[in-house]
Amino acid sequence: MIKAYAAMEEKQVLQSFEYDPGALGDYQAEIEVAYCGICHSDISMIDNEWGMSTYPLVPGHEVAGTVSKVGRNVTSLKIGDRVGLGWHSGYCNHCAACNTGDHNLCATAEQTIVGRHGGFANKVYADANSIVKIPDAMDLEIVGPLFCGGVTVFNPLLQFDVRPTDKVAVIGIGGLGHLALQFLNAWGCEVTAFTTSEAKRKEALGLGAHQTLNSRDPAALEAAAGRFDLIISTVNVKLDWHLYLSTLAAKGRLHFVGATLEPLDLNVFDLIMQQRSVSGSPVGDPSTIAKMLNFAILHDIKPVVEVFDMADANTAIARLKAGDIHYRAVLRV
Amino acid sequence: MIKAYAAMEEKQVLQSFEYDPGALGDYQAEIEVAYCGICHSDISMIDNEWGMSTYPLVPGHEVAGTVSKVGRNVTSLKIGDRVGLGWHSGYCNHCAACNTGDHNLCATAEQTIVGRHGGFANKVYADANSIVKIPDAMDLEIVGPLFCGGVTVFNPLLQFDVRPTDKVAVIGIGGLGHLALQFLNAWGCEVTAFTTSEAKRKEALGLGAHQTLNSRDPAALEAAAGRFDLIISTVNVKLDWHLYLSTLAAKGRLHFVGATLEPLDLNVFDLIMQQRSVSGSPVGDPSTIAKMLNFAILHDIKPVVEVFDMADANTAIARLKAGDIHYRAVLRV
Repeated sequence: MIKAYAAMEEKQVLQSFEYDPGALGDYQAEIEVAYCGICHSDISMIDNEWGMSTYPLVPGHEVAGTVSKVGRNVTSLKIGDRVGLGWHSGYCNHCAACNTGDHNLCATAEQTIVGRHGGFANKVYADANSIVKIPDAMDLEIVGPLFCGGVTVFNPLLQFDVRPTDKVAVIGIGGLGHLALQFLNAWGCEVTAFTTSEAKRKEALGLGAHQTLNSRDPAALEAAAGRFDLIISTVNVKLDWHLYLSTLAAKGRLHFVGATLEPLDLNVFDLIMQQRSVSGSPVGDPSTIAKMLNFAILHDIKPVVEVFDMADANTAIARLKAGDIHYRAVLRV
Repeated sequence: MIKAYAAMEEKQVLQSFEYDPGALGDYQAEIEVAYCGICHSDISMIDNEWGMSTYPLVPGHEVAGTVSKVGRNVTSLKIGDRVGLGWHSGYCNHCAACNTGDHNLCATAEQTIVGRHGGFANKVYADANSIVKIPDAMDLEIVGPLFCGGVTVFNPLLQFDVRPTDKVAVIGIGGLGHLALQFLNAWGCEVTAFTTSEAKRKEALGLGAHQTLNSRDPAALEAAAGRFDLIISTVNVKLDWHLYLSTLAAKGRLHFVGATLEPLDLNVFDLIMQQRSVSGSPVGDPSTIAKMLNFAILHDIKPVVEVFDMADANTAIARLKAGDIHYRAVLRV
């Protein structure tokens, strides 16, 4: 039996829950969970915001731990390997996306907490090729958030060939944004953080932003017209996207990694006149996660975490909902 | 004096109009107009739809003719050269866009019919570096529409590195779309035309589409889910963009070259889940126009035009407004 914490119904607090994971599949591995990050999408799933939750629901898709069992056809992992698991816990391995290395775009990929149980547990199963080894130089306590939040903001830099000479801005300096600032700084870019408070401004500069821009100051936004090659939005609220588009340079891109539910009421002229793009992307494939881990070690990039015992998961979730975590909560098993 | 046809006021029919163009600038050339295409944006400008028209307004930005005078610093053109002129008649030549060959994105570029007089005239002035030579193999009577309509749909193929293995669809089989189908077919792509009528279906197949897709048939759209790498929208009306996004493959792009005035009420999930992009672009730079002309000659790509005498410009405009031109109207001086 796996000992876990689960929401038994929609929007309920978590409680102890045990389940039988069944036999380990031939291509699966069992991870003994050491730490698991808490992501906003765990809360969205607990609350069934996306209409795809099933209960009991064991959240957790920022797993760090060690391999405790391997299926008989698994050759890439062995017992004792330090590993992590993110949003995906399996891929079809035969669609066009999988065949071209874009496993995170596999339309039938297994999602760690959708219709199966995640990492708020002592153990979790996953397909071996969705599990990524963690280099020794990376601390298990802090690495979890890189497997979802981290790769979500790192992946676009590879996908869109972001160059060190680019000027890049980040909207939302929280769990995702604080990692984006660190990655972009190490990438060589001129980094701007959109902020509204003086406290956030100082933190953003400490995390790698070269400057901040007060998005509630129309004059500041106007002065930034045509400036950014890329803006990464990590927020899940509606903003005045027209204003942000105006700060993009020719051929610039406004890229969404935060799942804003309200429609983007974009003006097509804003796109046409300066050949601008608007796009989105979900997490990243396992090879990108591996590249990100190496890049993070090389440049001393670390999630800033607050660690809670698994028994205090509900406290951690409440504080995350209140916007009171700097910057990412991690549960210790 | 230049003899032209002008709208003397907003939304008025054109009438004869003469103006003194002043001295030719040192870097300008005078074109003796032989033919000039009529573009939907001429009508938008006559009607002041974009709020930037000044009157009298001489439309015309799909000019084909010969050089009749050159400014004293012009070395790239000589009298008698067969040339064309499109939406832009001058560039700043020193901004980041101009310096990287993206003159069409120059924020202060001179626009042929904005605050100056266009090609519905016997002559027109323009900066020499906005004028493109027309190879001998290209007929002056049909080439005009390539200078705006043509390059508008050709440019995205270069900008976004469209590959011959891509599946590309076109929305709107009119002045721009009938050229897009021809270019894409010659580019090697699998070409789909979105159509709603049986008559258009046959024409689209004749122009290079390998198949058509009835966009009013929900089942047909559903069957095309995840299919296209690129969709080029040439229309200026609001469609159900959510439906079209669903027909994009992973990493697919919905690209607007038609200036839809109504906001794009896009769902950010549609972008995130399959890493899709939405974008727009305006015409193309002079070097792209030159490449397009060579490509068109090599592949026997020709605008399908109806030719009218300049004196019948109002008739041609009325028929274009009524959607009764197949596919592009050209005025003969």
